[in-house]
Amino acid sequence: MAYRETEKMRQRKAQARQRIIDSAWACVASGGFRNARITRIAGLAGVATGTIYRHFESREDLFAEIFRTATQREVDKVAEALHGPADAAARLEAALRRFAERALRAPTMAWALIAEPVDPQLEEERLLYRRAYAELFETAIREGIEDGSFPDQDARLSSTCLVGAIAESLVGPLSPTLSGQATLANIDKKRLVDTLLAFCLQGLTGTRR
Amino acid sequence: MAYRETEKMRQRKAQARQRIIDSAWACVASGGFRNARITRIAGLAGVATGTIYRHFESREDLFAEIFRTATQREVDKVAEALHGPADAAARLEAALRRFAERALRAPTMAWALIAEPVDPQLEEERLLYRRAYAELFETAIREGIEDGSFPDQDARLSSTCLVGAIAESLVGPLSPTLSGQATLANIDKKRLVDTLLAFCLQGLTGTRR
Repeated sequence: MAYRETEKMRQRKAQARQRIIDSAWACVASGGFRNARITRIAGLAGVATGTIYRHFESREDLFAEIFRTATQREVDKVAEALHGPADAAARLEAALRRFAERALRAPTMAWALIAEPVDPQLEEERLLYRRAYAELFETAIREGIEDGSFPDQDARLSSTCLVGAIAESLVGPLSPTLSGQATLANIDKKRLVDTLLAFCLQGLTGTRR
Repeated sequence: MAYRETEKMRQRKAQARQRIIDSAWACVASGGFRNARITRIAGLAGVATGTIYRHFESREDLFAEIFRTATQREVDKVAEALHGPADAAARLEAALRRFAERALRAPTMAWALIAEPVDPQLEEERLLYRRAYAELFETAIREGIEDGSFPDQDARLSSTCLVGAIAESLVGPLSPTLSGQATLANIDKKRLVDTLLAFCLQGLTGTRR
């Protein structure tokens, strides 16, 4: 008789997988991808190290899953902020603000997702996600040109400028290695976000904020 | 008697090293870091593969040298454009234009330096160089605030917005994998650079271009 996985076994397997993901997530959120050691993840999840490799082909595969899930969550939050009754400029401003504020509230995770030096496999995923943000912004810019809240412009190019400006200007404040998160506690986050948004919206509108 | 390297031997060693660097440079410029195989570099340089490892500890070390030399050359070109008799806004515009135009003229090398997914070691270097560009721009923005060509603003933050906007908006056009260099031949490069500069300068000045 062929071996058959019972429903209970399937459930336990799924639960172990979820515990591994949650533990890896917590490790990345507290120290970035580089410091997320498999032994520590296994310890947190309450499984043997070998068990992790029954659920994920490699450390890289596990991290790619964390990266995708965490980034998709951020993309969804931005997409959510882009919906609503306000004009396109106001919605885009709300979305950019949400992106920046969420990053500053969870700086290590944001650094891991945006700028931590990672393996080329994750870098590839990162480039795709930056494209996903740009596409969301591009749609909003087009709507803004339509509803008169933005002057006519190359929406695609402006959207990549936004992604670049916001990601790059957060890299410094978020980086645990460069300028240091030691200083993050001391900076005026509201002022940082306001200043960043002023640059972005001036870039889009050519009107002084 | 201790073995002593003669002057002639030193020269030949230095020449071999330079040929290896030139060959690696040519490989990266034509296909990025990923496609720069050591065997091909050795073939181009006319040395045995093993010889490369007498000059560089590893493939990564050789690539780090190419990365540093090539990026430093670009940083120097930008710094050069920032000097001159014009007002700070005009000099900064010239520098941003030079960065973008040089990237579009050597798109594969620019992609390799700016955005190609690479090993974490090179990623670290990349973050440092982005900081170098930001510092150059920051100085020019401060000078512009001083000479009245820019309104008062957080020069440091605006400089990182510039680096991000210009790097990110070039990633698409330059990428051999994403949108593809196949399309690079078909895009209006002058219009691309003008549009990008308009966003950047509007971001800095809040005045419609």
